[in-house]
Amino acid sequence: MAREQLTQLRKQMKQYGIDAYLIVSDDFHASEYVGDYFKCREYISGFDGSAGTLVITALEAGLWTDGRYFLQAEEQLKGSGITLYRSGEPGVLRIPQFLQKVLQKGQCLGYDGRTISVTYATQLKEALREKEIRFEENMDLVGMIWKDRPEMSAEPVWLLADCYAGKSRREKLMEVRRQMKQQGADVFLLSSLDDIAWLYNIRGNDIAYNPVVLSYSLIYGDRAVLYVNPVCITDVVREALEADGIEICPYLQVYRDVRRLNREMNLWLDEGTINVALRGAVPPGVRLINRRNLTTEQKAVKNPVEMDHVREAHRKDAIAVIKLIYWLKQNYGKRQITELEICEQLEVFRCQGTHYLGQSFAPIAASGAHGAIVHYEPTKESSIPVVDNNFVLLDTGGQYLEGTTDITRTIACGSLSPQQKQHYTAVLRGNLNLAAAHFKYGCTGANFDYLARAPLWELGLDYLHGTGHGVGYLLNVHEGPNAFRLKEAGDRVGTVFEEGMITSDEPGLYLAGQYGIRLENLLLCKKAEKTEYGQFMEFETLTLVPFDRDAIVPEQLSDRERKLLNDYHKRVYETISPYLDAEVAEWLREETGAI
Amino acid sequence: MAREQLTQLRKQMKQYGIDAYLIVSDDFHASEYVGDYFKCREYISGFDGSAGTLVITALEAGLWTDGRYFLQAEEQLKGSGITLYRSGEPGVLRIPQFLQKVLQKGQCLGYDGRTISVTYATQLKEALREKEIRFEENMDLVGMIWKDRPEMSAEPVWLLADCYAGKSRREKLMEVRRQMKQQGADVFLLSSLDDIAWLYNIRGNDIAYNPVVLSYSLIYGDRAVLYVNPVCITDVVREALEADGIEICPYLQVYRDVRRLNREMNLWLDEGTINVALRGAVPPGVRLINRRNLTTEQKAVKNPVEMDHVREAHRKDAIAVIKLIYWLKQNYGKRQITELEICEQLEVFRCQGTHYLGQSFAPIAASGAHGAIVHYEPTKESSIPVVDNNFVLLDTGGQYLEGTTDITRTIACGSLSPQQKQHYTAVLRGNLNLAAAHFKYGCTGANFDYLARAPLWELGLDYLHGTGHGVGYLLNVHEGPNAFRLKEAGDRVGTVFEEGMITSDEPGLYLAGQYGIRLENLLLCKKAEKTEYGQFMEFETLTLVPFDRDAIVPEQLSDRERKLLNDYHKRVYETISPYLDAEVAEWLREETGAI
Repeated sequence: MAREQLTQLRKQMKQYGIDAYLIVSDDFHASEYVGDYFKCREYISGFDGSAGTLVITALEAGLWTDGRYFLQAEEQLKGSGITLYRSGEPGVLRIPQFLQKVLQKGQCLGYDGRTISVTYATQLKEALREKEIRFEENMDLVGMIWKDRPEMSAEPVWLLADCYAGKSRREKLMEVRRQMKQQGADVFLLSSLDDIAWLYNIRGNDIAYNPVVLSYSLIYGDRAVLYVNPVCITDVVREALEADGIEICPYLQVYRDVRRLNREMNLWLDEGTINVALRGAVPPGVRLINRRNLTTEQKAVKNPVEMDHVREAHRKDAIAVIKLIYWLKQNYGKRQITELEICEQLEVFRCQGTHYLGQSFAPIAASGAHGAIVHYEPTKESSIPVVDNNFVLLDTGGQYLEGTTDITRTIACGSLSPQQKQHYTAVLRGNLNLAAAHFKYGCTGANFDYLARAPLWELGLDYLHGTGHGVGYLLNVHEGPNAFRLKEAGDRVGTVFEEGMITSDEPGLYLAGQYGIRLENLLLCKKAEKTEYGQFMEFETLTLVPFDRDAIVPEQLSDRERKLLNDYHKRVYETISPYLDAEVAEWLREETGAI
Repeated sequence: MAREQLTQLRKQMKQYGIDAYLIVSDDFHASEYVGDYFKCREYISGFDGSAGTLVITALEAGLWTDGRYFLQAEEQLKGSGITLYRSGEPGVLRIPQFLQKVLQKGQCLGYDGRTISVTYATQLKEALREKEIRFEENMDLVGMIWKDRPEMSAEPVWLLADCYAGKSRREKLMEVRRQMKQQGADVFLLSSLDDIAWLYNIRGNDIAYNPVVLSYSLIYGDRAVLYVNPVCITDVVREALEADGIEICPYLQVYRDVRRLNREMNLWLDEGTINVALRGAVPPGVRLINRRNLTTEQKAVKNPVEMDHVREAHRKDAIAVIKLIYWLKQNYGKRQITELEICEQLEVFRCQGTHYLGQSFAPIAASGAHGAIVHYEPTKESSIPVVDNNFVLLDTGGQYLEGTTDITRTIACGSLSPQQKQHYTAVLRGNLNLAAAHFKYGCTGANFDYLARAPLWELGLDYLHGTGHGVGYLLNVHEGPNAFRLKEAGDRVGTVFEEGMITSDEPGLYLAGQYGIRLENLLLCKKAEKTEYGQFMEFETLTLVPFDRDAIVPEQLSDRERKLLNDYHKRVYETISPYLDAEVAEWLREETGAI
């Protein structure tokens, strides 16, 4: 017995001659979060985790998901007729290999190519080449059967004033066109939502936590088209955009317009960010310039206005987080506090700041052993009270008119063991040493990662994630191309740290079943002195929230590290205390005193 | 009026229809040093620097060289009819652009392709494509006119015993064939001399400082051919090689044999190491597997026998260098000592050790301002006495049956200024911190470079060379693919540090007109502890010679750095003092006492 939705889908497959149908979890822009309209995999399978891919044939149906979701998927797939494939477990086939096995020579694989990346499609095509599989890439079969499908998000678009953006859309467009000309491009196709929002100084609310607009754009030498649901565009916004030479067209019309591109044109696009349906719409004659979106680097390098604002955003954010830590420390032991309550209270404090627009990602408050689950997010079902003599790991961020924040603090509740303190101190040392890097212009993320890991490696410990990611300005909290990574991969290779780039510094340690520690500050790259040897660079720590003295072993810090900590704490106190009540300010004074 | 040799060459060019002729400084294997036979550029131009390229047309003749040789070339080219092009100076045409300018459409460029890398030939071809230039790649025009041309080096080949090599040539060949099979290669073409010497456990003396043999090799599934001048091969060597299935053929016969390769074969070669004539000899039908020589990685990872021997080589080398430093410190101020005398005296001390086979590169003893010239080598003309109140930079190395050494010490003579000491201390800190890296398996050179540079960068200083290079075992002192570099390039990208790799750790500082400092130890990569987080790695410092206390400011070392220095010095004393005279041992005891 299979789920009704599955049966219906198979009917469609039969009707359209599709032998296998693939459903991924993405929207048309590979957004980090997807709206309800795009939740086809959940609709067909009933599994509502954030990651999972469904493959359906006439006889088989399989769902692939990762370790975070094994239990949940097992539960939700019961009686659905869908088999769970535990990705990454030994002996579990990967999807391309599964398709290789189940498809007969010359059969047909279908999917909605708007949800599939060019890279993934290429992988599939390579794996299935010998089987001579036919690909139907423009098949939204779920759309055909999903009667009560939610509407696509169509939230109002608003304009980010130049005084916040620091550069007008007119100037940004001029720069884009200058670079297009330099590369010989006649037209530039953009489909990454943060690039579009950045370029046109628009913001929206179509993706959870990312203040972006479901849209595409084509930029020509003399005109620019923004493809967006017209209901999102008020007259004021339309007039402002049109005044700068930007036409508004319906969202999905971009596929038609790309298909009609003049065959003699040179088209700049970034295959790393566009979906395979859009790539497939490009007429064969068009000459491709497949390079990183030229907006990506410009967006990563914050301008002086943005830099000033971001400092302000972090000041406001620090006030809220410091209040939260004080509140937690005061209430701990007096009454039960749950993870969800911590998130809610922090939101209350953040809302007390001006120009606060909401969270920049789903907040993590993880108590005790929950802290060791790197992707843990508390829900009504999972939320537990603060565990005694353990940590609360709190990884949250806010969207302000003045920029995007992202901060992790790990807070001691009760008394800690020597091992807990040693581990906290090692993570702290890594955080401080990376932030204190002083380097000659030209360094990339791979040059710094060691600084954050060394104190853990000394102890035979490690964390299995990158050390830091780029952060947008009132945009996505995860933004390329800058990052701190041991190995640079893909687009990040060779990305040099430029003045104005903001990158997180977040070493951690995770002991399954025990606790997790992560300490995250955002670092703004700035020019330091220039000497005959070159331009030197340094980081300014934007985040201004104290580390937890209850968890630090001063003897395990070097003299230099102790000075770095004391200097940082002094700066935190001096900058933030004027905005706090006397009681909290007094507490902060003690927390930030020299050790 | 042109040099007679130039006039003759032009006659040949005319006879063979060559409009421009190119002469580089390389032998057929891109060796670091070239024998007299290969010095065609010197023969034609009279310029005898180590780097320079000559381009000749009917009307023009130009020599390109770099800043090291501007003065010398100017002098030596006087009256030759050859124009000096100062490479790297603003406005100076590069050779491909020069050829673009002087050649007419459809004309012919000639060179001896055996001396030209595939990469360089590709550059030339791309630059001259639009001019439809014809390439004559097998034209040794200089050979035709050079009557008293020296013979090609033909030194005897000797066998490195398995007890030194640690692995028999039979085993190495088996491993090569296993990998060939895995990659589907029918035949493997080797032309890098150190790879050949490593594979067959042979050594020779055809290249200065590199104990290698002018040779090529083709390895098939069932046979292997070593192409070498037969006069170099004694009966003993021939029998040993033939017993392991290795045939001897004349050196240049490889070009014929490559030309006759079966067109259905899969040929493994590394275009990064073969010359364009050899590449051009490959028949069109042959399928190429263009990958790094599979011997390169194996050669870089020293086996346990090699590792043990190398420790022994460094012990012997340390005895010699310590004696030299003692000798210099004792004699300084009593009589004049020149740079050349220092080199000669060190050679005397090295020769006192067993199994010493000679220097591993041209020694550098650079006094005072000479130390700031990174490529300085003292000659009879340039050698100066030790400068008072300054440094002597001593960068030398030896070849032993037990391996290859490379060490730089910078020795204080007289009393130093606070700035000199500060600079020495900063370089020392970088050296110590890199050597103390403790890291999880998987790191590459780019992850560590910062450690060596940070103390200099703190002061706005830097050195404009890499931090370290791989080192062979009784082979080339510069060996890939391991290295410490800020940016990995070419073959080095992604090279993970493996147990058994030997890499130099040599930060420096160079103040033009004042002094140079470089401190170089060789580091052996080794496994450290294995934890649930993975395999950890560390470096063992092979070099065992004290740093100069007269140049160190203890207060500028962190506690950790001080401990690293004291521990190192203790190990130096304990390991080396038993081999020294009482007087020198006593001096060493003082030099290595804790600070």
